[in-house]
Amino acid sequence: MSNLMFDILFLGTGASIPSRKRSTSCLAVRQGRSISLFDCGEGSQRQLMMSQMSFMKIDRIFISHMHGDHILGLPGLLQTMGLSGRTKTVTVYGPNGLEHSLTDMLNACEGELKFEIQVIELKGGELFNFDEFTVSTFMTVHNVPSIGYVYREKDRPGTINKKKAEKLNLIPNEDFSRLKAGETVKGVSPEMVMGKPIKGCSMVYTGDTAPCDAVKKHANGVDLLIHEATYIEKDIELAKTYFHSTAKAAAEIALACNIGMLVLTHISNRYDDSEYSIAEAKAIFGNVIAPNDFQMLSVSRSNIRLV
Amino acid sequence: MSNLMFDILFLGTGASIPSRKRSTSCLAVRQGRSISLFDCGEGSQRQLMMSQMSFMKIDRIFISHMHGDHILGLPGLLQTMGLSGRTKTVTVYGPNGLEHSLTDMLNACEGELKFEIQVIELKGGELFNFDEFTVSTFMTVHNVPSIGYVYREKDRPGTINKKKAEKLNLIPNEDFSRLKAGETVKGVSPEMVMGKPIKGCSMVYTGDTAPCDAVKKHANGVDLLIHEATYIEKDIELAKTYFHSTAKAAAEIALACNIGMLVLTHISNRYDDSEYSIAEAKAIFGNVIAPNDFQMLSVSRSNIRLV
Repeated sequence: MSNLMFDILFLGTGASIPSRKRSTSCLAVRQGRSISLFDCGEGSQRQLMMSQMSFMKIDRIFISHMHGDHILGLPGLLQTMGLSGRTKTVTVYGPNGLEHSLTDMLNACEGELKFEIQVIELKGGELFNFDEFTVSTFMTVHNVPSIGYVYREKDRPGTINKKKAEKLNLIPNEDFSRLKAGETVKGVSPEMVMGKPIKGCSMVYTGDTAPCDAVKKHANGVDLLIHEATYIEKDIELAKTYFHSTAKAAAEIALACNIGMLVLTHISNRYDDSEYSIAEAKAIFGNVIAPNDFQMLSVSRSNIRLV
Repeated sequence: MSNLMFDILFLGTGASIPSRKRSTSCLAVRQGRSISLFDCGEGSQRQLMMSQMSFMKIDRIFISHMHGDHILGLPGLLQTMGLSGRTKTVTVYGPNGLEHSLTDMLNACEGELKFEIQVIELKGGELFNFDEFTVSTFMTVHNVPSIGYVYREKDRPGTINKKKAEKLNLIPNEDFSRLKAGETVKGVSPEMVMGKPIKGCSMVYTGDTAPCDAVKKHANGVDLLIHEATYIEKDIELAKTYFHSTAKAAAEIALACNIGMLVLTHISNRYDDSEYSIAEAKAIFGNVIAPNDFQMLSVSRSNIRLV
């Protein structure tokens, strides 16, 4: 079993219109051998090619909402997977209307895919269970139906004290795996020979949203909150009009939720760089970053750091 | 009136699957203040942003065929134009089915455009007349309906010998513009005071095609032939299977057509770079280039050169 940790690669950190510096929304989460993508703006396949992550290892794609800057990379990425010999199913999750949108985009181009695409439409409140983590969903507040995602690493059973266990006549592998599954073996309960469970890390990705209670509720206590911060306070009227957040609003939510680290993304191309966004947020919540495209966060219980 | 010349900016020179080095098909032709785009693969809007050409000056887009690597940049580019305040119509030309494809791609995303998109579907054989040039069309040979384009600068009237004309009592501006329009003024015919017409330059863009007679016919004598060269000869079986051309085949057509310069594009990502393509073509036709993304050709009667 791999170490309890995951990597988050920021592939597109811009809002609505890309810029020289920022591609449109996309982030990749790698856990073990499998990659989950969150949003897939135009150009995401090429951003992946320019990064260290293999687009062929993407098993699932979570779409926050159906604005072009979050979905227009889907048909190209899926076609490239097909042309590269993919046969394994890709599952795409997103709000109501996703199936229709994806079908439209794929039908617009000639050519057929030779692998299955499974589409799962969401209403918020779903929980999906994978080998090493779960993903749950909640509705956010935008001008179209929009979904936020909670990514939660599963806790890992504590380490078995091998000497102690062998003294109690337990056999490695055979008995140990039963203990790890929570069983009592030969009269020995897990607590008698195992350390405390190792707690997994958790992350919320808001997608596009106005500041909202749903994020506050679902991000409570998470290690990492990736919150959109399209605007800064001087443009708050735009944020209100278009149901987006300012960096300040994102920081206020981070503070209220008692999270570990705040990550600002979806930065409008009207700002030269993210220093204003960071400064505004930092005044409220200290542990904040706004990654550039291709920066990667390594997330483990002991450390969350840019690599 | 601007000088008789145009610029061709290569924005995407790769085939099917983009690579770190090459984006998918797109080239921009700038003549005076107006830009015509030929094909619009995914990421074209961002390639434009990274270049010296303004995406807001694009007035028309010519699509060669409906494979994803030639059209998936359309919805994003058009949406970005809209978000950037465009009100002027954009005309999109392409084979049968274009309207359906474009509608599908735009419908896939939430949000409406606030300018008109005029769609003109082509069968080959059309001629479009613009201020400074014409564009005519022909069917090529691919595994889906596909169109090649002939871009032809209009000839410009010769220069008026001012001294001679004034001696013959002709008044600058007033009489001169009538002479330039071909009229005889105060008994003076244009030939009596004007130099020879200045000949415009011409260019053919094939889009994707197997080597074909239609290109031979329509590229005959042009200054510039931009021919796809997806493969090189060692992969000729792939070229045949997928209705593409090798660099050698493109050069044979260039030779047969007595053109000025051959430009190879749509290079498969299986080749590290274009040196093999160039070498293969050069053995047959000397004046050949295979531009990288962001290289620009300046085209005038006296000179065609990379700038």
